[in-house]
Amino acid sequence: MILALAGGVGASKLLRGLAQVIDPAELTVIVNTGDDVILHGLTICPDVDTVIYTLAGVADQERGWGVEGDTFNALQWLGRYGRECWFNLGDRDLATHLHRSALLNEGRTLTEVTDLIRRAFAVRARILPMSNERVSTIVLTDDGPQSFQSYLVRDGARRAVRGVIFEEIERSRPAPGVLEAIETADGIILCPSNPIISIGPVLAVPGIREALRATKAPIVAISPVVSGRSLKGPTDKFLTGLGHEVSALSVARLYHDFLDLLIIDRLDTGLLPVIEALSLQAKAAETLMDNPERKIALAKETLVCLASLTGWRR
Amino acid sequence: MILALAGGVGASKLLRGLAQVIDPAELTVIVNTGDDVILHGLTICPDVDTVIYTLAGVADQERGWGVEGDTFNALQWLGRYGRECWFNLGDRDLATHLHRSALLNEGRTLTEVTDLIRRAFAVRARILPMSNERVSTIVLTDDGPQSFQSYLVRDGARRAVRGVIFEEIERSRPAPGVLEAIETADGIILCPSNPIISIGPVLAVPGIREALRATKAPIVAISPVVSGRSLKGPTDKFLTGLGHEVSALSVARLYHDFLDLLIIDRLDTGLLPVIEALSLQAKAAETLMDNPERKIALAKETLVCLASLTGWRR
Repeated sequence: MILALAGGVGASKLLRGLAQVIDPAELTVIVNTGDDVILHGLTICPDVDTVIYTLAGVADQERGWGVEGDTFNALQWLGRYGRECWFNLGDRDLATHLHRSALLNEGRTLTEVTDLIRRAFAVRARILPMSNERVSTIVLTDDGPQSFQSYLVRDGARRAVRGVIFEEIERSRPAPGVLEAIETADGIILCPSNPIISIGPVLAVPGIREALRATKAPIVAISPVVSGRSLKGPTDKFLTGLGHEVSALSVARLYHDFLDLLIIDRLDTGLLPVIEALSLQAKAAETLMDNPERKIALAKETLVCLASLTGWRR
Repeated sequence: MILALAGGVGASKLLRGLAQVIDPAELTVIVNTGDDVILHGLTICPDVDTVIYTLAGVADQERGWGVEGDTFNALQWLGRYGRECWFNLGDRDLATHLHRSALLNEGRTLTEVTDLIRRAFAVRARILPMSNERVSTIVLTDDGPQSFQSYLVRDGARRAVRGVIFEEIERSRPAPGVLEAIETADGIILCPSNPIISIGPVLAVPGIREALRATKAPIVAISPVVSGRSLKGPTDKFLTGLGHEVSALSVARLYHDFLDLLIIDRLDTGLLPVIEALSLQAKAAETLMDNPERKIALAKETLVCLASLTGWRR
């Protein structure tokens, strides 16, 4: 079983490739839920949905969020009622949030609900939220604290990041199956997601980082930073805001207590010796996944790296 | 101020006419909420919405429910998730239920929420739910009790009606403003709605029927039964099921303790003497409202009847 730790868009590109290279039934994905947001009384899990929609083949890959060909008629009327409409909710997407919220209100856990949703799409990969408890990623800016979605979507990630808090994370526990998956995986992949606010919350759930340190499975990460810039999203703002340079080297440092190998972009080949000086293996590859072939190629490369590490660790 | 007691579709046709004949700001409508249903975690008030959508000019008048030109993409996906989809929910319509449910969950009353929704549509008529407490119309059939919507929409009102229960009605109170409106109205209209399951629940809220008996305002009703048939919906099934003949005469009997005048259809002119024998006035008119002119004409006729009664009662 291959285990992947994932945020939203960046991760799902690699997962799309992986699911074509290995039997998806052999893939487990632990997904960040720190971005989750409650709007209009609905529990919305953007990263979980992006991963499921992508693996189901219904994601809008151009926009990077939501469902391909979705309409926005409910949202237009929510606006008419004076409700907050900065978070885009397509009509089909809304059905997912309605279904999830109704099941949660009936007492189902987020793990159970996530499993029902991915099965409704015949997604064969197992999708686990990082935790059943609600954790909220809060971004500290000069204008005060903001929820992550409000910082990113409502305000367009304009403000400098002064800090990040994962609210209630101390009280959260890994979702059922998460620690077992880390322990029993044949290989673990940290997807090219924002290491601070996508992978960061997953690692901060008490027990998960420790389990990654303890597992016998080899662990490979893919840097979302290429030649000093984040490929998409505000990864650079978060790295800078927390005092890290915007470089694959920072990704190596953030993961180095449990990571075996970091895949960096070809353009960063010069960083290989510096990263290896951290007692990490490093490998340069084409990490830009702008077409299906490149997703598959990077997935294959990642699996080759994992295979090369098998039996090597500890 | 003119006060109307209303169900959904039949009522809203007359209300549409009324709002063009008098200043809508002078119109108050008390609407049945016994048909309300909770689906997908959302509180849905079909009659309230039909009245608001109609007065707002956004109702789908051909279908008789929902919003004109609405799409059904969320519903399609709710079906994909295996959720009950027999109750048609358009995407725009869904926004109304989301908004209402979110406000109710925040502690607003149904009266407050209804007022916010009609104001969002610039509907100038005042719309009052019959009660802020939840009342459920239950239909008894040979196959057991069913909620009204499930009987009507899911099963197509196929089964014979053996009885009707308004669950929790003893514990309900008239919504704020309802009794005052009955007391201070210049005239009261019972719209051509099903007397058993549309007007019936309104009359059964403790205090409302008594207030109608006590008010000095003249009261006119319009029969939804024409020449032994209900113009739309299962009014006939409900009358038969509760032991009434399917006739405007039954409508007269059901209301006769507080009613001053019943408007019946021209085709039922023969019933005038029988109804008058109940110490009620009766008047024959064209009650089919199949075009805008006829809605206006019946509204005018109703107002003329009310005017003829002013000062006459008690």
